[in-house]
Amino acid sequence: MFEFSFVIELLGTIAFTISGVFSAMQKRLDMFGVLVIAFVTAIGGGTIRDVLIGYTPVSWMRDFNGPLVILITGIVAMLFKKYLKTFKTTLFLFDALGLGLFTIIGVQKGIAVGLNPDVCIALGTITGCFGGVLRDILLNNIPLIFRKEIYATACIVGGSIYFLLISYVDMNIARIAAITAICGIRIVAVKYNLKLPVL
Amino acid sequence: MFEFSFVIELLGTIAFTISGVFSAMQKRLDMFGVLVIAFVTAIGGGTIRDVLIGYTPVSWMRDFNGPLVILITGIVAMLFKKYLKTFKTTLFLFDALGLGLFTIIGVQKGIAVGLNPDVCIALGTITGCFGGVLRDILLNNIPLIFRKEIYATACIVGGSIYFLLISYVDMNIARIAAITAICGIRIVAVKYNLKLPVL
Amino acid sequence: MFEFSFVIELLGTIAFTISGVFSAMQKRLDMFGVLVIAFVTAIGGGTIRDVLIGYTPVSWMRDFNGPLVILITGIVAMLFKKYLKTFKTTLFLFDALGLGLFTIIGVQKGIAVGLNPDVCIALGTITGCFGGVLRDILLNNIPLIFRKEIYATACIVGGSIYFLLISYVDMNIARIAAITAICGIRIVAVKYNLKLPVL
Repeated sequence: MFEFSFVIELLGTIAFTISGVFSAMQKRLDMFGVLVIAFVTAIGGGTIRDVLIGYTPVSWMRDFNGPLVILITGIVAMLFKKYLKTFKTTLFLFDALGLGLFTIIGVQKGIAVGLNPDVCIALGTITGCFGGVLRDILLNNIPLIFRKEIYATACIVGGSIYFLLISYVDMNIARIAAITAICGIRIVAVKYNLKLPVL
Repeated sequence: MFEFSFVIELLGTIAFTISGVFSAMQKRLDMFGVLVIAFVTAIGGGTIRDVLIGYTPVSWMRDFNGPLVILITGIVAMLFKKYLKTFKTTLFLFDALGLGLFTIIGVQKGIAVGLNPDVCIALGTITGCFGGVLRDILLNNIPLIFRKEIYATACIVGGSIYFLLISYVDMNIARIAAITAICGIRIVAVKYNLKLPVL
Repeated sequence: MFEFSFVIELLGTIAFTISGVFSAMQKRLDMFGVLVIAFVTAIGGGTIRDVLIGYTPVSWMRDFNGPLVILITGIVAMLFKKYLKTFKTTLFLFDALGLGLFTIIGVQKGIAVGLNPDVCIALGTITGCFGGVLRDILLNNIPLIFRKEIYATACIVGGSIYFLLISYVDMNIARIAAITAICGIRIVAVKYNLKLPVL
């Protein structure tokens, strides 16, 4: 299970980094700016989570691999932007997997600190989504997740499924079910261009 | 006194939530986006305060009622927006009360952590005002409180009154006086459209 | 050495405050808004650093002089804006010195918490640069350091020099060398209008 999580986390980090690079390049930032946006997109959600629950120094400061993966991915993405764009579908799947895993990591961190289920779900959603929110703030856009296809809603549903299952089944099964749900909702939402209503 | 504070906190939270909903709907966010902005407006100031003084997990994660009040208020406000807009004056009064109470709660938390009076006043002002600042950042606006009628200045005056009185009178009296001052300044500022000078 | 650091920190704080005031006045904020931006520019980087490593209450809450220096500088800068603009070169030098010192303070705080060298360099860069990033976010601009002359890159180079030297020479010498490098890079970058490439 550890190895499985590790691979998903790696793919998710790569996908989040690349989305940061592409957004930043659209605004014509310099190389350093692009890399900062890539980092913020990949680690921002987890950092806000850690700060809110008081887990400091925050996770990326204790982690050798994450920052290195982001740096290498960021540089490769800048250099091979056009080529990478042809893998749009693959990147979207990585992103959906990463979103699912990061959300459940956030939920589990909340449980470890003794928070209520609804707060844990909020924490998971923050972990999954707020890297993208910070990216959009830094690039002077209104955060995409407030306007686009069902994104945070998928995290909330996934987190709820985790809590529904955790009393009945093994933690790893609850985890896989929740991540699958988040991925599934994202895939359906993007495929059929589903959006939340605007009142 | 506890009950009195509770009622004001409730009214203030409702008013802040509604202001978040109205601002977000102007930018045509989806339902989830509107609710996030509502939450951030209502709890953002207290969250920044808690993070700055190291009170983690932050307050809203320990509080059952707050998030629920915000959720219900947010949904009601989205559905009955037009109707609510006719209560503009009432909402403004709730907002002024909430601003007063949140500011003094922030000041008192600063005292509890052993900070200097001027830092406590800054902390109170952050508690009262920075939810609105985060709301404006997320909606890609320059924060209103940097441009509009005297807002933060009312918090600074109220916080100073609290410190002037606290050596001489009962804490509850100092508290009521400070909240009254903040409310009063807001009402006068809005009624006569008073602004701080732009140099 | 203590006195020397103190003078540089003072000059740096003054320069950062003035840059905040000038940026805010361009957007025609009211007096309070200008002062908030001045504070955020001067203390924002150190505040984010403190929050990320869990050093709370954050530094400016424990420091009598800093906030007072910022307040006085901010008011003077608002009143004598035109006069101050004639000292553009002096202010730029203060800013470069402050950037160098703040970066190395951040690096040393990271070392004190036991972080790895690369994370310490990131922390130093955040300390030096993110006050300006917050200023630009609040003013609804895309952060300047992502677009302008080599800025954060200077911090990264300076931080690396500090770590290269610290095993061989006295801490104070490593410190002075690193600050000199950061200043030097900034001066050369601005003089010859050097920028990082945009891919």
